[in-house]
Amino acid sequence: MRANHIKDLWAEGRVATNIFLGLPDSFAAEIIAGQGWDGVTIDMQHGLIDYQVGVTMLQAISQFEATPMVRVPWNDPAIIMKVLDAGAYGVICPMINNREEAKRFVGACRYAPTGYRSTGPVRAAFYAGPDYHQHAAETILTFAMIETQDGVDNVDEIFTTPGLDAVYIGPSDLSVSMGGLPGGDQRTPEVMAAIETILAAAKQHGIKAAIHAMTSEYANEMIEKGFDLVTLSNEYRHMATRAAQVLGEVKV
Amino acid sequence: MRANHIKDLWAEGRVATNIFLGLPDSFAAEIIAGQGWDGVTIDMQHGLIDYQVGVTMLQAISQFEATPMVRVPWNDPAIIMKVLDAGAYGVICPMINNREEAKRFVGACRYAPTGYRSTGPVRAAFYAGPDYHQHAAETILTFAMIETQDGVDNVDEIFTTPGLDAVYIGPSDLSVSMGGLPGGDQRTPEVMAAIETILAAAKQHGIKAAIHAMTSEYANEMIEKGFDLVTLSNEYRHMATRAAQVLGEVKV
Amino acid sequence: MRANHIKDLWAEGRVATNIFLGLPDSFAAEIIAGQGWDGVTIDMQHGLIDYQVGVTMLQAISQFEATPMVRVPWNDPAIIMKVLDAGAYGVICPMINNREEAKRFVGACRYAPTGYRSTGPVRAAFYAGPDYHQHAAETILTFAMIETQDGVDNVDEIFTTPGLDAVYIGPSDLSVSMGGLPGGDQRTPEVMAAIETILAAAKQHGIKAAIHAMTSEYANEMIEKGFDLVTLSNEYRHMATRAAQVLGEVKV
Amino acid sequence: MRANHIKDLWAEGRVATNIFLGLPDSFAAEIIAGQGWDGVTIDMQHGLIDYQVGVTMLQAISQFEATPMVRVPWNDPAIIMKVLDAGAYGVICPMINNREEAKRFVGACRYAPTGYRSTGPVRAAFYAGPDYHQHAAETILTFAMIETQDGVDNVDEIFTTPGLDAVYIGPSDLSVSMGGLPGGDQRTPEVMAAIETILAAAKQHGIKAAIHAMTSEYANEMIEKGFDLVTLSNEYRHMATRAAQVLGEVKV
Amino acid sequence: MRANHIKDLWAEGRVATNIFLGLPDSFAAEIIAGQGWDGVTIDMQHGLIDYQVGVTMLQAISQFEATPMVRVPWNDPAIIMKVLDAGAYGVICPMINNREEAKRFVGACRYAPTGYRSTGPVRAAFYAGPDYHQHAAETILTFAMIETQDGVDNVDEIFTTPGLDAVYIGPSDLSVSMGGLPGGDQRTPEVMAAIETILAAAKQHGIKAAIHAMTSEYANEMIEKGFDLVTLSNEYRHMATRAAQVLGEVKV
Amino acid sequence: MRANHIKDLWAEGRVATNIFLGLPDSFAAEIIAGQGWDGVTIDMQHGLIDYQVGVTMLQAISQFEATPMVRVPWNDPAIIMKVLDAGAYGVICPMINNREEAKRFVGACRYAPTGYRSTGPVRAAFYAGPDYHQHAAETILTFAMIETQDGVDNVDEIFTTPGLDAVYIGPSDLSVSMGGLPGGDQRTPEVMAAIETILAAAKQHGIKAAIHAMTSEYANEMIEKGFDLVTLSNEYRHMATRAAQVLGEVKV
Repeated sequence: MRANHIKDLWAEGRVATNIFLGLPDSFAAEIIAGQGWDGVTIDMQHGLIDYQVGVTMLQAISQFEATPMVRVPWNDPAIIMKVLDAGAYGVICPMINNREEAKRFVGACRYAPTGYRSTGPVRAAFYAGPDYHQHAAETILTFAMIETQDGVDNVDEIFTTPGLDAVYIGPSDLSVSMGGLPGGDQRTPEVMAAIETILAAAKQHGIKAAIHAMTSEYANEMIEKGFDLVTLSNEYRHMATRAAQVLGEVKV
Repeated sequence: MRANHIKDLWAEGRVATNIFLGLPDSFAAEIIAGQGWDGVTIDMQHGLIDYQVGVTMLQAISQFEATPMVRVPWNDPAIIMKVLDAGAYGVICPMINNREEAKRFVGACRYAPTGYRSTGPVRAAFYAGPDYHQHAAETILTFAMIETQDGVDNVDEIFTTPGLDAVYIGPSDLSVSMGGLPGGDQRTPEVMAAIETILAAAKQHGIKAAIHAMTSEYANEMIEKGFDLVTLSNEYRHMATRAAQVLGEVKV
Repeated sequence: MRANHIKDLWAEGRVATNIFLGLPDSFAAEIIAGQGWDGVTIDMQHGLIDYQVGVTMLQAISQFEATPMVRVPWNDPAIIMKVLDAGAYGVICPMINNREEAKRFVGACRYAPTGYRSTGPVRAAFYAGPDYHQHAAETILTFAMIETQDGVDNVDEIFTTPGLDAVYIGPSDLSVSMGGLPGGDQRTPEVMAAIETILAAAKQHGIKAAIHAMTSEYANEMIEKGFDLVTLSNEYRHMATRAAQVLGEVKV
Repeated sequence: MRANHIKDLWAEGRVATNIFLGLPDSFAAEIIAGQGWDGVTIDMQHGLIDYQVGVTMLQAISQFEATPMVRVPWNDPAIIMKVLDAGAYGVICPMINNREEAKRFVGACRYAPTGYRSTGPVRAAFYAGPDYHQHAAETILTFAMIETQDGVDNVDEIFTTPGLDAVYIGPSDLSVSMGGLPGGDQRTPEVMAAIETILAAAKQHGIKAAIHAMTSEYANEMIEKGFDLVTLSNEYRHMATRAAQVLGEVKV
Repeated sequence: MRANHIKDLWAEGRVATNIFLGLPDSFAAEIIAGQGWDGVTIDMQHGLIDYQVGVTMLQAISQFEATPMVRVPWNDPAIIMKVLDAGAYGVICPMINNREEAKRFVGACRYAPTGYRSTGPVRAAFYAGPDYHQHAAETILTFAMIETQDGVDNVDEIFTTPGLDAVYIGPSDLSVSMGGLPGGDQRTPEVMAAIETILAAAKQHGIKAAIHAMTSEYANEMIEKGFDLVTLSNEYRHMATRAAQVLGEVKV
Repeated sequence: MRANHIKDLWAEGRVATNIFLGLPDSFAAEIIAGQGWDGVTIDMQHGLIDYQVGVTMLQAISQFEATPMVRVPWNDPAIIMKVLDAGAYGVICPMINNREEAKRFVGACRYAPTGYRSTGPVRAAFYAGPDYHQHAAETILTFAMIETQDGVDNVDEIFTTPGLDAVYIGPSDLSVSMGGLPGGDQRTPEVMAAIETILAAAKQHGIKAAIHAMTSEYANEMIEKGFDLVTLSNEYRHMATRAAQVLGEVKV
């Protein structure tokens, strides 16, 4: 089975970079995937992307070494299984707040006896190889998002869910859930404390820790703390940032 | 009829900013169009964009003041008329090398008796208003691209074509046509001389002059020279530039 | 934050008009949205419309003052949050039968602490402005559809759900649920009694009342009764009605 | 080979009804095609429709007896052959002004020795049957649009082009070409005279005569004059007309 | 109401053939549907197909006698009702493991009082006729997939669910659920025993029995056993098989 | 610059296999491209494929070693340049009948001074590498289709066109052009004589010879004759053939 590049990096003790895609377009995906990111994540939750165009984005990413991942809109086995069958090598699931939700998520990603995923990896087997079924569990990454106070309170029961590979922290929702403001790169004491709690629990239970960042500064701080994967915002923000900067430089 | 923002700026003696779109996606178009560019040009020539998605991009741009324009793939009345009917307020036509080609292009953009455009401005009339037919000629901009040695040699006959509003210089093709290398922001003596020739002829014949730039430096130089519109590369290059920069800053 | 036109009308004590869209096409949406309807609702339940094309329809509607709304296929947080992130300013949710379902629906529409909506209003913030998060709750409308006998029986517990703005009555499903025939503009005593019950409860609990109509006659009757919003069928029925009429007039 | 319904009607001396489609949507096409129109024409010239969605519209129309036709954007063999291979049973070609243009158009519609159409009727053979090649010339209709003064002046040489089945009059372009205003249902003396000239020439040379109408009144007048096919506007105008009417009836 | 071809066959005591579609393309669907299969099933579970393109596939199939069916991604009323409104005449629902799940599935397919399907058969009524509502329950087929050990254990309570028409066996998932390997045409004693158990229960409770096969050999064996419908793999496997065979025959 | 697999094979004196794609779907393209074909050609002439979906097909093919090629609908620089910019490594152009047409075709594929292709290889440079411009002429294949008697008569002037790499024979059109029947694998004496003439001229002028076949038998015969590339029909015919065969084997 084709290797999962992020897992390979982790096996060497390295940190992985990741970027989100929010534009429903396979060419933007292809450009980004060719830049050397370790993971490229199609954001079907907040990005403007639905399944059908997501498939063409997975195809575009497949030319490269980057691990193709999908953030699904919700903890729903229908879409989780569909993106896996389409070849996703990692699934990030929002709003995991307790063990039951974690089991529902992980179960949708794993074949029996671990989970309840239906077999039929139509495109995945083309991407991965004919031995997909045998090695899927050890190759495909499952990320549970902890982004609420409930999630923070239940990290132990969540992180010990069999088949869960990693936690993914969304600082913006975490802040909102705690009564703060939305926005990335949160540094309020409350959010930072929650991040520390989650990170420590991940280390304790032997799962990997990933976090969403809007800037390289925040990402680097989080790497310093011990995170295993950092996401650096998404392609449309980078586009908007640079376009606005250039426009500002023109003297008209 | 809804005004053409670039024409309004030009009437005040100001320079207009423009950006190209190469991604086939209406959300990228919407983000860019909301940034304050004076013109936003859907690049159907080198961009990965065909007519059907181009329509949704025109719709997205229509929320803003920016002039929606299209660079057509070729000097072909079929696509020129289709993008005009879809609401383009400016057409940039590649590879105009002589008077005959200029007439073919401008004629496709204008109703009789000036041209031979077929009437049926299906979406354009929704965008522009019910008096579209009467004011289309004075509102919609026609840009002839001069990007070959032939075009440079024939600027006088091209620029005096009735109904032609502006010239658009493509420095990369100009360089290639003269035996040089491709790439934006050309500064070889040969290309600079050609640019000066074209610019002078445009001033002489009373049409506007526009040029493609990859950087704000080059754009500002061209504004200094007297250009009326500068394009600052396109959205996918800005995306790629910024994403690569951020990736480079992460310490993994 | 950009205002919600329907809320503005309601603040003035006026009745709002609304129309449904069932064709998956942004140009039909644009034509309709330009006609002066107060609300334009993309019908993702019974219309032939999925999320991806729905986004382009929201973009087309955004050029106009009309409030862009979506009827979601089902009470599912995944799609509710996705259409809100895409810029919907109102959500109509089918088949709300009790308090628990109402809370699930409204919670998906509201950020913490009222609800559990995940933050990331990707396109919504472009449409609404940077203060989207702060004003979303007071701007975005939530409509619970009452269209079953259970729903009618539970109007009090449903209408007092915090964050619920309005009820939306579907007379056809209401009739079917009561053992009657499907079809719009129901006037059977059973359905009329249920409508009166719902309307009275809405008035009592201070939420707005909306209803689906197939004809202007029925809509006007409902306005007389005190409804705050009337939907006048959808664009494809209007198309079919007029096309059939014209065909019938031709003497071949 | 599956019969061409319009040709069958004409063989019985009857007049055919036709409608244009301007919305890029196969469901609108399906609704219209099911209403009993004799022809349904996908308008790729002024409609917002490109080839790919046009194919799905042809598929939708194929369920019904109506003749599926396409108005192509321009007299271009590339698109003419593509829509024929996709199953169009009639092609309406804009802006035929002389014999040479007529031959170019008709030649693209006919296999050798009459024309130069390339063989490969990929979907057409599924729609029509395995004997498509043998009967294509006698089944598929070619309509040359006469909509300029030049076209009117050259009707004799145009209408005697071998393989041309019919003329299609566009009164709006005809008016514009003669210095008048655009708009359907033209009744100025100049346009009416041109219509009479075209109609008489069609009768003389044994080809059929078709005309575009915006209302049933105009269509009926034209039937009285002897036209063989009348088009009654298009689906989006019918939609807009009826929706606006209903909106006007609501008392808010 | 238009008849359901498979139901007609069954009424005559005959066995129906079926094929799955996994490519998101209406032309592949049209080619297959024209070959004489009794049922053609759009596979939205493991196929790479989402709702929007699924609608165009249903339209393409509608030209033919074959029963258009959909395998939905999951037991979710949102998508079940959407595909029914789009004109599916049969729904195959994966992973039905007990009576509660069977009721949830069947209820989504049936109007009150049997079920809770919302009325609004937008395209279905065009396909089926105006009496759709009255005859939908007796015309539209519901298939519960039994593909886990739990499902096998609960066949009696599942098969006696009012409104359930048939069982559909997925041998690959059945095998995986029992600890075996995935893959079609399972013949292990465990799977064969389960198939016999399911088939016997179906016969006992008077519902039809359908099964997925990869080869005609397996299908014929299952027909011998008494199955009422056999699926013969899908269009992309047939494509791949034949293409690979031809490639292997070329002597390069 | 990434190598052209077919050119590499030819450099070793080997024969290349090729297949056409007629379904507008990137997953079918991906399956086929993964089978080991030396070339995979998106058929935009007779296939039901337009540019936008063609781009996603090119992306899917790019994962594999196979040379991605496009048969364009017509000898039109607009679409030729667009598919090259999208990453096609070979262009097959229909209906080349004389030197002028050959020059128009080849010129659209080559940068100055050989041709008149506009520079802007947006996706091509991602696929090929940053040195695309310098090596494009020696890497990208140009195939002129000879499929008329005129073309046969003019093989010498066509085959000596600078920049033309190969001839591609379409036996079906060749037969029709000579007064014969359409259909692949033509063996009439007239067509065979024409094939021999073309092949001999290709050998004489040092260009490669390619031919379209429907069966491996015909392809093998042509390889025996000395052809350098054989196309083995297309993916939808293989799909249809195999599906029909399997259906025929079922005993219902």
